[in-house]
Amino acid sequence: MLQDLSVDNGGLSFTPLVVVELASDTKEEAIAWLLNRMRDLQQNGGAELLVEQLGPGVWVQEKDNPNVFLVGASRQRLLSGAEDVGLFKEFSDGSMRVFTFANKHDFKDFKGDGDTFLSMAECQYIIKHELDTLRARDETHVPGYTQAKLYPGKSIVRRLQSKGILIQMFPLHEKEELKRLTFSWYKKVKLSFQPLDDIRHYYGEGLALYFGFLEYFTFALVPLALIGVPYYLFDWEDYDKYVVFAVFNLVWCTVILEFWKRCSASLAYCWGTLSRKKAFEEPRPGFHGVLGFNPVTGREEPLYPNVKRQLRIYFVSLPFVLLCLYGSLYVMMVYFQMEFWALSVHDEEPTFWTGILLFIPSIIYAVVIEALNLIYRYAAEFLTDWENHRLESSYQNHLVLKVLVFNFFNCFASLFYIAFIMQDMALLRQSLATLLITSQILNQFMEAFLPYWLQRRRNKKMIRKVQKRKTLEDKELPLVEQVRLEADMSTYLGTFDDYLELFLLFGYVSLFSCVYPLAAVLVVLNNITEVYSDAFKMCHVFKRPFSDPAGDIGVWQLAFEAMSVIAVVTNCALIGMSPQVKAYFPDSETQLILWIVAIEHVLLAFKFILTFLIPNVPKHIRVKLARLEFESLEALKKKRRLRAGKCSKPRGSVRWPSEERTAYKY
Amino acid sequence: MLQDLSVDNGGLSFTPLVVVELASDTKEEAIAWLLNRMRDLQQNGGAELLVEQLGPGVWVQEKDNPNVFLVGASRQRLLSGAEDVGLFKEFSDGSMRVFTFANKHDFKDFKGDGDTFLSMAECQYIIKHELDTLRARDETHVPGYTQAKLYPGKSIVRRLQSKGILIQMFPLHEKEELKRLTFSWYKKVKLSFQPLDDIRHYYGEGLALYFGFLEYFTFALVPLALIGVPYYLFDWEDYDKYVVFAVFNLVWCTVILEFWKRCSASLAYCWGTLSRKKAFEEPRPGFHGVLGFNPVTGREEPLYPNVKRQLRIYFVSLPFVLLCLYGSLYVMMVYFQMEFWALSVHDEEPTFWTGILLFIPSIIYAVVIEALNLIYRYAAEFLTDWENHRLESSYQNHLVLKVLVFNFFNCFASLFYIAFIMQDMALLRQSLATLLITSQILNQFMEAFLPYWLQRRRNKKMIRKVQKRKTLEDKELPLVEQVRLEADMSTYLGTFDDYLELFLLFGYVSLFSCVYPLAAVLVVLNNITEVYSDAFKMCHVFKRPFSDPAGDIGVWQLAFEAMSVIAVVTNCALIGMSPQVKAYFPDSETQLILWIVAIEHVLLAFKFILTFLIPNVPKHIRVKLARLEFESLEALKKKRRLRAGKCSKPRGSVRWPSEERTAYKY
Repeated sequence: MLQDLSVDNGGLSFTPLVVVELASDTKEEAIAWLLNRMRDLQQNGGAELLVEQLGPGVWVQEKDNPNVFLVGASRQRLLSGAEDVGLFKEFSDGSMRVFTFANKHDFKDFKGDGDTFLSMAECQYIIKHELDTLRARDETHVPGYTQAKLYPGKSIVRRLQSKGILIQMFPLHEKEELKRLTFSWYKKVKLSFQPLDDIRHYYGEGLALYFGFLEYFTFALVPLALIGVPYYLFDWEDYDKYVVFAVFNLVWCTVILEFWKRCSASLAYCWGTLSRKKAFEEPRPGFHGVLGFNPVTGREEPLYPNVKRQLRIYFVSLPFVLLCLYGSLYVMMVYFQMEFWALSVHDEEPTFWTGILLFIPSIIYAVVIEALNLIYRYAAEFLTDWENHRLESSYQNHLVLKVLVFNFFNCFASLFYIAFIMQDMALLRQSLATLLITSQILNQFMEAFLPYWLQRRRNKKMIRKVQKRKTLEDKELPLVEQVRLEADMSTYLGTFDDYLELFLLFGYVSLFSCVYPLAAVLVVLNNITEVYSDAFKMCHVFKRPFSDPAGDIGVWQLAFEAMSVIAVVTNCALIGMSPQVKAYFPDSETQLILWIVAIEHVLLAFKFILTFLIPNVPKHIRVKLARLEFESLEALKKKRRLRAGKCSKPRGSVRWPSEERTAYKY
Repeated sequence: MLQDLSVDNGGLSFTPLVVVELASDTKEEAIAWLLNRMRDLQQNGGAELLVEQLGPGVWVQEKDNPNVFLVGASRQRLLSGAEDVGLFKEFSDGSMRVFTFANKHDFKDFKGDGDTFLSMAECQYIIKHELDTLRARDETHVPGYTQAKLYPGKSIVRRLQSKGILIQMFPLHEKEELKRLTFSWYKKVKLSFQPLDDIRHYYGEGLALYFGFLEYFTFALVPLALIGVPYYLFDWEDYDKYVVFAVFNLVWCTVILEFWKRCSASLAYCWGTLSRKKAFEEPRPGFHGVLGFNPVTGREEPLYPNVKRQLRIYFVSLPFVLLCLYGSLYVMMVYFQMEFWALSVHDEEPTFWTGILLFIPSIIYAVVIEALNLIYRYAAEFLTDWENHRLESSYQNHLVLKVLVFNFFNCFASLFYIAFIMQDMALLRQSLATLLITSQILNQFMEAFLPYWLQRRRNKKMIRKVQKRKTLEDKELPLVEQVRLEADMSTYLGTFDDYLELFLLFGYVSLFSCVYPLAAVLVVLNNITEVYSDAFKMCHVFKRPFSDPAGDIGVWQLAFEAMSVIAVVTNCALIGMSPQVKAYFPDSETQLILWIVAIEHVLLAFKFILTFLIPNVPKHIRVKLARLEFESLEALKKKRRLRAGKCSKPRGSVRWPSEERTAYKY
C-alpha cells in the first residue's frame, strides 16, 4: 500500500499520508512549535511523526499557501499507533483480534516487516488519531497567539482548528489504488455487487457500510418493484385493490430492517469494527465554556452547565423547530390552493396545456420542499452548534433529530393530508409521483453533477497551467500539484445527507407505495444511479475522507425503524379506508375501525416480538465472539493459577508441565 | 463475619460455610475421590478447600444420613477465590473496583489479615463457585459409578447432581447475624425502610434487589392509593368519573418503571454488581446430549441440536400452552354461567343470603385460577425441562415466558371480557375486588404460613428430642443438630414466584384500578404484609440460599414494561368507553374512536421517547463508571508508552521522571 506513492514523492524521504494546511499568515514561531511537537519523541509528549513542508510547485502563484505540510510516519510508529487506536486485524486462526505490537507476527497478513499489513486508509486514520491526541503540556497558549489559550491536556489540533490557524487536515488519494477501485466499482459494465471490501479498504468502514446499506436496500426493494410493475401495467391500480400491496408492504418493511442488522453485523465483524471499543471522546473543536475540572478525567478543561444547554434546547431550538414546522404547513396550504386553482382552470376549459398545468403545482411544491430542507439544514446546524454540545456524538444526535423531524414533516405532511383528511387517492398518487421524481432529479443534480462540473473546470485549468511549463506524458500531475489540487477539492461532509436521502425514499416507499406501486420501481432506479453518482463523487469530486471505524449505521438504524413503525400504522389506516375492506362492514363503520385498530396493535406487538426473536448478530459470529471471550477468560485464570502456585506453594512447581498439558486438552 | 460461627463449631478446625450432602448409600470410593479432589491443591486441579464429615449428633438415629460434609476454606483461599469470581469491592477512593489479590490492601475495608473483608454470604458464594468449577481431569466416570460418565473439563458437581449422588449443597445460616437481621428487618415495630444493605449482606444481591423492588413498588403505589381512598369514600366512584384516574394511572405506570431502573442501578452500583461481568455459563445439571465439541470452548461436552429443541418448542410446548389457554377460557365461561345463575337467583327473590351468593362464583373462580396457575406451573417446568436447554438462563427465560403468558391470560381474561365485551362496569368492579382479595389471602397462606407451620412442627420435635438427652440453656442447638435441622428445611426456589405475584398485582392496579380505585389500597396493604411474610419465610422457613450477584431484576423489568404498555392501551379504551367522554361526541362514535386511537398512539410514542430520554443509570454513577474506564485506558496508554520508550529509544529514559509527573497533572 505504502509503495504506491513512494514512486513519485517529490524528493521526500517518506511516504506522505496526510496533508496539514495552516493559514498562510500563521506566525513563524507557531509553525516551528507545532512542527517540533509533531516530530518530538512520544516520551516527551510528541507524536513522533515525520513532517515536511510542501515545496513550491512547478509554477508558483502568488495566492499559493506556503504553509502546507505533508505528514507521514515510520513503519514502526504506524504499527504502535495501530495498537493505540485499537485496530482489529485477522489473527492467524481466522478470528478478528485487537492488534498488539508484541504479537504482531501472529496476525495473518503480517509478513516480513509488516510493509503491507496496514492499508493506507488505516495509516491515515492512525496519523489523524495521533495528531488529534497531541496534547498541550505546560504551554498556556499557542506561541505567537495569546488568545489561543492552552492548558495541560488540551488537544493542540482542536485548539488550532477552533482558532482558524489550522485550515484543514486531509488524507491524500492514492492514484493507482483509486484507478483500480474506480474500475471495479462503476466502470465495469457488467452488473455485479459493489466491491465493498475494496471500498472499505480505501475509504474505511463507515462509508463502506453506507454503500452496503444502499445495496441492501436496493435489493430489498426488488420484490416490491416486481409486484409493483404488473399492478401498474395491467391497470390493477384502481384504488380499491391496494390491500394486498399494503399488507405486503407492512411485512416487508419490518423484515428487511431486522435482517439488515444481521448483514451489518457480518460486515462489521469481517472488518473488525463489531466489537471495537469506542475511544474516549474528546470535546468537539467548537465547544467552549468556563475552565473547570472534568469529573471523569479530573483534567482541567472548559465546562458548560447542562442546565444552560437544556434551556437553549427547550426554549430556543424547540420553538424554532415548531415554527419551521408551522411554516412548512403554511407552504403546504399554499400548494393546495395552487392545486385547486390549476384544477379549476383545467375543469373550465380542458386542453393539453391545462393537463400539464395540473402537474405544475406539485413540481413547484417539490422544488420548494427541497429548498426548505436545504435552508432548514443550515439553520439546524447553526442552532445545534449554538447549543454547545461537548461531544461530537451528542451534537450529531441532536442535529439528526432536528433535521429528521423537519424533513419528515416537510416531505410527508402533504401526503398524509391528502390521504387521511382529503381522502383523495387519485391526488395522492399524482402528488407522490411528482414529489418522488422531482426530488430525485434535484438530488442527483445537486449532489454529484454540480460539484463535478465545478471540480472539472478547476482540474482542467490546473492541468493546462502545468502543461504550459512542462510536458506531461499521461496527464498525471507531479506530487506537489496533486496535493494542491486535492487541497482545493470540496470536503466530503460525511454520510449524513446520503442516509437522509435514503431515509426519505424509504418513507415514500413504505408509507404510500400501496397507492402508487411504481414508487418502488422508481426508487430502485434511483438507487442504481445513486450508487454510480455516489461512487463517482467519492472518487473524483471530493477530497479523500478520513476513514471512520463504524460498527453499524448508528442512529439511522433507529430512524429507519421508527419509520417502519409509522409505516405499519399508515398502511393499516390505508387498508381500513379501502372500499374493498369497507364492503365487509356495510353497516357499522365503528366495527371496521375497531377491527383495524386491533389488527394494527397485533401487528405492532408482533413487530416488537420479532425484534427480540431475530438475533442481531448471526450465530456463527456470536460463536466466534464467545470463543474469544472464553479464551481470554481462560488465559486470565491460568495466569492467576500460575501466580497462586508460584507465590504460596513453591513445592508444587515440579508438576507444572503436566498441568499445562491438561489445560490445553480441555 | 467468620468468627460468629467459630465460637461453637463442634471441634472443627475451621469455620464451616457450606454443607454438602451425598446420598446415604454413596460408595466409599466415590466419597474418597470427591473429598480428595475437593482438598487437592489448585495446581493439581483441586479446589483446595477444607472438608470435614459431620459427626453423629447427640442422639443418633437410624435414618440419619452419615454422608453430610462441612466445607470451609482458609482465608487466603477465600481471598484468591474472590478474585476468581470477579467480586467488586469498595476501593480506598470510594469507587467500586474488581477485587484483585495483589492490590488487596488498597481496598477500603481490608484491615489486617482481611478477616472481616468478605461477608459470609460472599465466602459461601465463592465456595459454591469453586465447587461448581471443580472439573474432571482424565477420569472417565465417577469411581464406583460406571454410569456417571465424566470427560475432561466436565463439572464434577453437576454430574453428581444429575446422577442423584449429590443430594444438596447449601450454605449455613449464621445464628447471631440472623437474629440481628431479623430484628432490624421486621421485629422493629416502628415504620422504616427495610435494611437493604443488611439483607444484601446476608442473602446476596438478587434477593436484596427483590426486596428493594417490593419496597419501591409499595411506595410508588401510595399516590394511587391516596387518590383512590377519597374516590371510594365520597362516592366519586360512579363509573362515569374514572377518566381522571385512568389518565393518572397511565402516566404513573410509565414513570415508575423508568425510575425503578435508575434506583436499581444505584443499588447495584453500591453493591458492586452493576458492571460485574457474567461468568461463563456452564451447561445446566439436567442438560443431556451426544458428546461433541463445543464450538466456543473447543471442549468435548454433550451437544443437543438446536433444531430438535425448536421442534419441541414449536410443536409441543406451544400447542400445549395454547391448549391450556383454551382450557382457561373454558373455565372462564363456566364462571360466567355461574355468575348469571347467581344473579338470576338473586333477582328472583333478593335476600341477604342471595346477596352473599352473588360473590360466591367470583370467589370460586379466584380459587380455581390460583389452582390452575399452580398446576400449570408444574407443567411448564416439566416442559421447559424437557426442551433440554443448555444454559440455565435460557431455561429460565423460556419458563418465565410460558408462565407469564398463561398467568396473565388466566387472571385477566375474565376482566377484559367483562370490561370490553360485556361492558359491565359494576360487574368488573365486583369481580376485580373478589379476585384481588381472594388471591391475596390464598397467596399469603400458601407462601408463608403453611410452610412455617410445617417447619415449626419439625423444629419443636427436634428440640424436644435433643432436650431429652441434654439440658439446653437457651434452646440453642449444637452445630451438628443445627446442620441436620437446616438440611431438613425447605429449599427457597428463587425469586420467581415472588416476582410473579408482584407482576399480577401490578397488572390489577395498572389495568383496571380506575374502575375500582381501592385496588391500589389493597395492594399497598398486601405489599406491607408481603414484606413481613417474605422476610419471615426467608429467615425461619427456608434454608439459606446461595447469594446471586444480580445487577438488575432481569427479565422481570421487561415483563413489567410489557404490562405497562398493555395498561396504556387498556386505560385509553376504558376512557373511550366512559359516558363522560362519550358525551363530547354525541353524534359520531367513529369520531370518538379515532380520537381515542390517535391519543393512544401519541401516548405510546411518548412512552417510548421517555424510555430513551430518561437515562437508565443516574448521572453520578455514570461519571464514576466513566472515570474508571478512563483511568484504565490511561494506565494502558502509559504502559504502552513506557514499553515503547524502553524498547526503541533507551536514550529517552533520562526524561522519565518529568514525563510521569506531567501525566499525573492531567
